[in-house]
Amino acid sequence: MKNEQAVVLLSGGMDSCVTAAIAKLSYDLSFLHLDYGQKTQRREKKSFLDIAEYYKVHKKMIVDVNHFSQIGGSSLTDNRIAVRAADLDGEEIPPSYVPFRNANILAIATSWAEVIGATKIFIGAVEEDSSGYPDCRESFFWAFNEAINKGTKPDTFITIMTPLIHMSKKQIVEKAFELKAPLHLTWSCYKDEEIACGICDSCALRLRGFQEAEKKDLIPYAIQPESI
Amino acid sequence: MKNEQAVVLLSGGMDSCVTAAIAKLSYDLSFLHLDYGQKTQRREKKSFLDIAEYYKVHKKMIVDVNHFSQIGGSSLTDNRIAVRAADLDGEEIPPSYVPFRNANILAIATSWAEVIGATKIFIGAVEEDSSGYPDCRESFFWAFNEAINKGTKPDTFITIMTPLIHMSKKQIVEKAFELKAPLHLTWSCYKDEEIACGICDSCALRLRGFQEAEKKDLIPYAIQPESI
Repeated sequence: MKNEQAVVLLSGGMDSCVTAAIAKLSYDLSFLHLDYGQKTQRREKKSFLDIAEYYKVHKKMIVDVNHFSQIGGSSLTDNRIAVRAADLDGEEIPPSYVPFRNANILAIATSWAEVIGATKIFIGAVEEDSSGYPDCRESFFWAFNEAINKGTKPDTFITIMTPLIHMSKKQIVEKAFELKAPLHLTWSCYKDEEIACGICDSCALRLRGFQEAEKKDLIPYAIQPESI
Repeated sequence: MKNEQAVVLLSGGMDSCVTAAIAKLSYDLSFLHLDYGQKTQRREKKSFLDIAEYYKVHKKMIVDVNHFSQIGGSSLTDNRIAVRAADLDGEEIPPSYVPFRNANILAIATSWAEVIGATKIFIGAVEEDSSGYPDCRESFFWAFNEAINKGTKPDTFITIMTPLIHMSKKQIVEKAFELKAPLHLTWSCYKDEEIACGICDSCALRLRGFQEAEKKDLIPYAIQPESI
């Protein structure tokens, strides 16, 4: 019997990789990745492609959502048309965080899911990690599910799945090892280098997760963390 | 006292123009326009800018959502990465309609509304006109309002307004005349010409609305409709 299909939002980071591993248990996977002018865009895309290869996922789509930086920077350009940033590089990027970003992401994922006939959308949101962003809370995902229900065809059933929503980084690392998720292919560092820095906030959070789970992180670090 | 701000989704067509006229009664306006590779992109943008000038709206944003055609065409490219169409022109455009499109549009509008502090989002959806698209129904907009409520900051209050949702084209034309909406600046024709064709479905629908309202359409037509 053919499995149901799931769209997995795969940034290339650890959380989305573990989310893919969980989705893989029950579904045929399609991977969706967003480029939104983030500094680590090139490196994240490599992780996305590497993880897709690891899981032999052929249905994959990379969407360029340049409007995130356009909206994020729009408050600075109120009195003229906010045009597309000509070339998004390095220091010139306007803040890429925009409010309600997850709704934008899920809307894209839902459109794609309906086109390809997928019934689930997996997103690796973690409520506790999210600095209180309202669109990372479980209640938001429930509300969005209802919008999907009302806004898609009567015979379409698409549900958002948030398997990590209440997990700690420690539990996420443990789940990764349990499911043999390819964490060595993921990228968490805020820098767009070949080797993770080991000292930025994101590296520190990742390394603490490994430490608490008493596991070894196999990606190389420019500054080696203390061995555990 | 400073008015509340509203974002108006302005395609450049008649419905969105009348929606702007209604919003103008109570709010300071910001105009949002989407380019998604539609054939009439150039002509619609001109109408958008003309209507913005008419209403002296300075806060305006044009967002390039090329992912609509990417997703719309994605079912044809399942087994490879669906890349951005290099050059969207004329006949090469994949079907630009994607399911759940209004959710994508409203998510962009909500992000922008929260950044600029607007409290309303006006969209000129007409339920009866919409061939049963689920994301044009009032119940969808209600559900999306709840997603906005859950997914934005506690002190953010943004509501979607659909003043035309149950109007006929006749009523929309009447409302336009009542409010002096600049219908002469709008564009409804499916062709990207300087003069509307007068015979495509969209021209026909528009002209019937004028006829039923017993008003004269002031835009020129290549094929003159019967005088009324």
